[in-house]
Amino acid sequence: MKAARLHSYHDALKLDDVDEPKADGPFDVIVRMGAAGLCRTDLHIQEGQWAEKSGVELPYTPGHENAGWVHEVGSGVSNVAVGDTVIVHPFISCGFCIPCRVGDDMHCVNGSFPGINRDGGFADFLKTSARSVIKLDTGLEPKDIAALADAGLTAIHAVKKAIPLLGAGSNAVVIGAGGLGHIGIQCLKAYTPATVIVSDPSEKALELAKQTGADETVQVDGSQVQTVQDMTGGGADVIIDFVGEKGAIQDGIDMVRDGGFYYVIGYGENIDIPTIDVISREISFIGNLVGTYVDLVDLMTLTAQGKVTLHTSTYPLDAINDAMADLDGGRLQGRGILIPAGA
Amino acid sequence: MKAARLHSYHDALKLDDVDEPKADGPFDVIVRMGAAGLCRTDLHIQEGQWAEKSGVELPYTPGHENAGWVHEVGSGVSNVAVGDTVIVHPFISCGFCIPCRVGDDMHCVNGSFPGINRDGGFADFLKTSARSVIKLDTGLEPKDIAALADAGLTAIHAVKKAIPLLGAGSNAVVIGAGGLGHIGIQCLKAYTPATVIVSDPSEKALELAKQTGADETVQVDGSQVQTVQDMTGGGADVIIDFVGEKGAIQDGIDMVRDGGFYYVIGYGENIDIPTIDVISREISFIGNLVGTYVDLVDLMTLTAQGKVTLHTSTYPLDAINDAMADLDGGRLQGRGILIPAGA
Amino acid sequence: MKAARLHSYHDALKLDDVDEPKADGPFDVIVRMGAAGLCRTDLHIQEGQWAEKSGVELPYTPGHENAGWVHEVGSGVSNVAVGDTVIVHPFISCGFCIPCRVGDDMHCVNGSFPGINRDGGFADFLKTSARSVIKLDTGLEPKDIAALADAGLTAIHAVKKAIPLLGAGSNAVVIGAGGLGHIGIQCLKAYTPATVIVSDPSEKALELAKQTGADETVQVDGSQVQTVQDMTGGGADVIIDFVGEKGAIQDGIDMVRDGGFYYVIGYGENIDIPTIDVISREISFIGNLVGTYVDLVDLMTLTAQGKVTLHTSTYPLDAINDAMADLDGGRLQGRGILIPAGA
Amino acid sequence: MKAARLHSYHDALKLDDVDEPKADGPFDVIVRMGAAGLCRTDLHIQEGQWAEKSGVELPYTPGHENAGWVHEVGSGVSNVAVGDTVIVHPFISCGFCIPCRVGDDMHCVNGSFPGINRDGGFADFLKTSARSVIKLDTGLEPKDIAALADAGLTAIHAVKKAIPLLGAGSNAVVIGAGGLGHIGIQCLKAYTPATVIVSDPSEKALELAKQTGADETVQVDGSQVQTVQDMTGGGADVIIDFVGEKGAIQDGIDMVRDGGFYYVIGYGENIDIPTIDVISREISFIGNLVGTYVDLVDLMTLTAQGKVTLHTSTYPLDAINDAMADLDGGRLQGRGILIPAGA
Repeated sequence: MKAARLHSYHDALKLDDVDEPKADGPFDVIVRMGAAGLCRTDLHIQEGQWAEKSGVELPYTPGHENAGWVHEVGSGVSNVAVGDTVIVHPFISCGFCIPCRVGDDMHCVNGSFPGINRDGGFADFLKTSARSVIKLDTGLEPKDIAALADAGLTAIHAVKKAIPLLGAGSNAVVIGAGGLGHIGIQCLKAYTPATVIVSDPSEKALELAKQTGADETVQVDGSQVQTVQDMTGGGADVIIDFVGEKGAIQDGIDMVRDGGFYYVIGYGENIDIPTIDVISREISFIGNLVGTYVDLVDLMTLTAQGKVTLHTSTYPLDAINDAMADLDGGRLQGRGILIPAGA
Repeated sequence: MKAARLHSYHDALKLDDVDEPKADGPFDVIVRMGAAGLCRTDLHIQEGQWAEKSGVELPYTPGHENAGWVHEVGSGVSNVAVGDTVIVHPFISCGFCIPCRVGDDMHCVNGSFPGINRDGGFADFLKTSARSVIKLDTGLEPKDIAALADAGLTAIHAVKKAIPLLGAGSNAVVIGAGGLGHIGIQCLKAYTPATVIVSDPSEKALELAKQTGADETVQVDGSQVQTVQDMTGGGADVIIDFVGEKGAIQDGIDMVRDGGFYYVIGYGENIDIPTIDVISREISFIGNLVGTYVDLVDLMTLTAQGKVTLHTSTYPLDAINDAMADLDGGRLQGRGILIPAGA
Repeated sequence: MKAARLHSYHDALKLDDVDEPKADGPFDVIVRMGAAGLCRTDLHIQEGQWAEKSGVELPYTPGHENAGWVHEVGSGVSNVAVGDTVIVHPFISCGFCIPCRVGDDMHCVNGSFPGINRDGGFADFLKTSARSVIKLDTGLEPKDIAALADAGLTAIHAVKKAIPLLGAGSNAVVIGAGGLGHIGIQCLKAYTPATVIVSDPSEKALELAKQTGADETVQVDGSQVQTVQDMTGGGADVIIDFVGEKGAIQDGIDMVRDGGFYYVIGYGENIDIPTIDVISREISFIGNLVGTYVDLVDLMTLTAQGKVTLHTSTYPLDAINDAMADLDGGRLQGRGILIPAGA
Repeated sequence: MKAARLHSYHDALKLDDVDEPKADGPFDVIVRMGAAGLCRTDLHIQEGQWAEKSGVELPYTPGHENAGWVHEVGSGVSNVAVGDTVIVHPFISCGFCIPCRVGDDMHCVNGSFPGINRDGGFADFLKTSARSVIKLDTGLEPKDIAALADAGLTAIHAVKKAIPLLGAGSNAVVIGAGGLGHIGIQCLKAYTPATVIVSDPSEKALELAKQTGADETVQVDGSQVQTVQDMTGGGADVIIDFVGEKGAIQDGIDMVRDGGFYYVIGYGENIDIPTIDVISREISFIGNLVGTYVDLVDLMTLTAQGKVTLHTSTYPLDAINDAMADLDGGRLQGRGILIPAGA
């Protein structure tokens, strides 16, 4: 089969011919890929930022936002059948460790992460596990939902953690209305009565924010902190930061109310804050990884109910390097989606 | 009456003769001081660290850990009577704003803080409010419990926030076994089945930790992170940091497990951490101010039940500058307590 | 002033001339009544059902859903001023006991309940407390929001307790789409992504349910349990029962899924269930009283944001016995509202 | 192998020779039985109370509190190995449905319950699943911990649900200090600072309560409600009822404070309460089934830490009918444990 593989850091991916994966273990599932989302993390992987953390050996195939159809299943698989349309949770968890037994899949002590530390979905087929696949209605097309498997999943995970803080009259500031942010906005509107305020430097992004339900938009032009302070009467209850660099962190710290919570999702720069401010203002910073299997089930439900919709641009898989260049150059509208030749 | 007042930053306090406060408003309460705890924050006030934040005008009387006997009450006061022994919650909250109505006293929008931004308890009498006093059993001596009004209150507040994370088999690392830490240890043991691990550079402090219930102690000698990692099988569920400087923050970050929570209480240096670590490890930092009125009621209950006891050293009020020098010089065992001449 | 008073159980109210109340205490507030909602509990009071529980002495003035304008304030009142439009929380809490200090107003150990155990709002003026009034925008008319002070407040209180159970894909069954139910439906839609299913025997009520946001309606005609079981794939996560009699309780027990929660709001008959069913199905029953002060603030916010609107029918105060007869006879659409002559 | 089987309702069990079970599926685990706890539910099964609910076909082998050593494993099992000492969670859950994915094992939609609806542990060997076994330290003897698999597990499950209600100064009433109750007391003391009050008619049971940590004991002699009301100043925050019959339910309702919670665990009679009391007192009833896998892991941790110990009486498996007669006749001290001949 074809697979877009990284052979050395900083170089373009190459479209290689490789062996198809097989369902050797009792809970293996082979997915014929229908679509794979392209993530800023794929650029960071190419740049080598994850080399040490993942420990992956090159060459390998990135791609961690995957959807398609079940092609082959192991002997113990009963929750999906060959031919089912599935979205793929990005992580493979063991199901037996304590984090798995309480539903905290991402902290599985025996897990692996296709596209990060083993072969992922920029290919014709993907090997995953029965614990990672969610069967979808046949009407759903992989290309329309693949990017929910990571971008959307991270957004809903952070929003679900913030629900208890977002009652009537509360304010949530979303920093960054891009691939994750526009899903985050829709999740906030679906789950809470909070007023959703979105800040972004791009007018186009703020338009997308309005379309997807933002109550207020604030352009990042130097006055954004004061504007949010005025709108909220002294700071927002919750900041959901999908950017994590280029001034977003200081903005978030200055926009959150005393006693408020700052959800960290985007990454790039440091949180650097005097502890006297943390304690005298009693503010908290919450780290957020990609969501759990059930978070993804929930996101599929909201999508099926029309409460969340994804904005995408598609590319054939063999144009992956063009897609990555477009993402890096800020020319990609919504989430980029790669489609294998046979899908 | 006598009051130990700060006339200029960096100078010693002076024992002045000043007017006694009066219960002018319907909910005013005048407390005849029995004992006032001495806090590291009093040193920071003297050094001017709080000058801008508090906006207090000099001269004024510090002292925010107060206990004594009710001396006079306003016309609307019914929850205490003249002669009652009381501990004084350090904050005066309004009772009508939304934070007050949900019990989140410290974020009252109309509050004031005796000892920080108005006259406090290093004096013969203290003016406070009906909302700030808790009646105690007559058997309790102000000098034995005064320091619970801030040091203890901050410790119990953080511990109560951490309870949902501290089930059977969990681990909590307490950084710093001083005035706050030794109360924190006792609260952790009272509220949770967690294994309590205490780190401190001082052997004497670690002895106090053992006496007050620590399951394990770890001397800060360069190997402390590895020791905690080994004890906990990969990191503690919760860090409760009563130090916030001198390497404690990096220790805490390195000792917390992925998915764990770091409670910030001590202050001095910065939290400075790459967001990629915050998200890939999904760790969170929780700011902690002094506790609520009900937290202080709870702490009094635990004290009355013998589950929490305070270790102190007493000084007469007119020896306050000696006490402050001892605190600054690390010569003070347990919490320092100042006793007015008439008490 | 005029007051509609109950002189003996089972008799009609009489419109009496009585003395105006005075703001004697420091936190007293006298409200010039603009509108008072009529509640099924007023019928139960007339019938004597509350005689023993309330211990009230006759004659007295019912009316516990009140709104109007501040007429006089005690010396210590600062949160409202004469002339302010206010809605009145039905309970007078002390502000000093532990339940009050954590925001659980309704379990105040020193409280009183105008309209239940002392004079209420079926009159020209009402005596209440600074802790019970919420200032409204001048644009809001008392007659449009008075019924939120109890009917709406009870509904939002129960819904807020159920939020953690009502995630994506969850189902909530509302039993009864009357005065409380139609607010409950709107609160469920504002706070959660749950599918809201409403059951009621009346087609007119089900129409109101649809207008106020119900996703599904189910007529009570003998097949309602099976219909809900089919819609929900085995039972709803949450039942919110605004009826509590006439078969509603058994319906609710049969409609809730194993592991689900049944919120009791309406009253009349008994819950009578074998404990073997409670434990083998692990179902829970949650009692619900009227909400807290902050619940009422939240409801005012949702109303101001257009997320909740009230359906009412108005009567002059001197037609109160007609209004009560209409309510008893099922001829009252939405909530009945009584307007004093001078309002 | 030998198995004690029920051939017809109301008759004694018979010790039959039957085939040994085999690990046919990839996640099957065969346990060589070391000990099986005897539960009041086994009497109810014999009496036919569960016949309809379980739908089991006779003859079959009861026994749902099991511990022993791993004898054989399926091809996909990696969490235990042959020879490991294990305690067996009583339920076999699928691991793939939504309840399983969030850790709510007992509401698995594909589960089965050895000893209830298929062959259980009153035998030489038991067939269970990799998801149901917890590996123990080799020092632990099956006979010392088997009864924790159901009796203890139910107790800890209810206690863990009640933790948020049981802060400093709170009161928990445990009704019934028998096989479950004495574990519940120890769990309450391990997890919370609540004052634990135990009521039981038997002096011997109250002695056991004291030994296992009860702060107060109250004999059921007609004055128990008043005694608890006096001790708690108006009612307990939490009732944990391990009896569910013989007056326990009315006692519990009368002992719980307004706003309090009643945990139903024991069964036999009905909860029968007017809804007007449920709402005017705002009391709640929480159903409790046996706990989750992680609850059992937690209980094993508390046992290993010495915070929970079990009181038992042992019988050889072939004396099972004697043991059942002793249990029925109230002659069994602590939990009855059956030991197969070869163990």
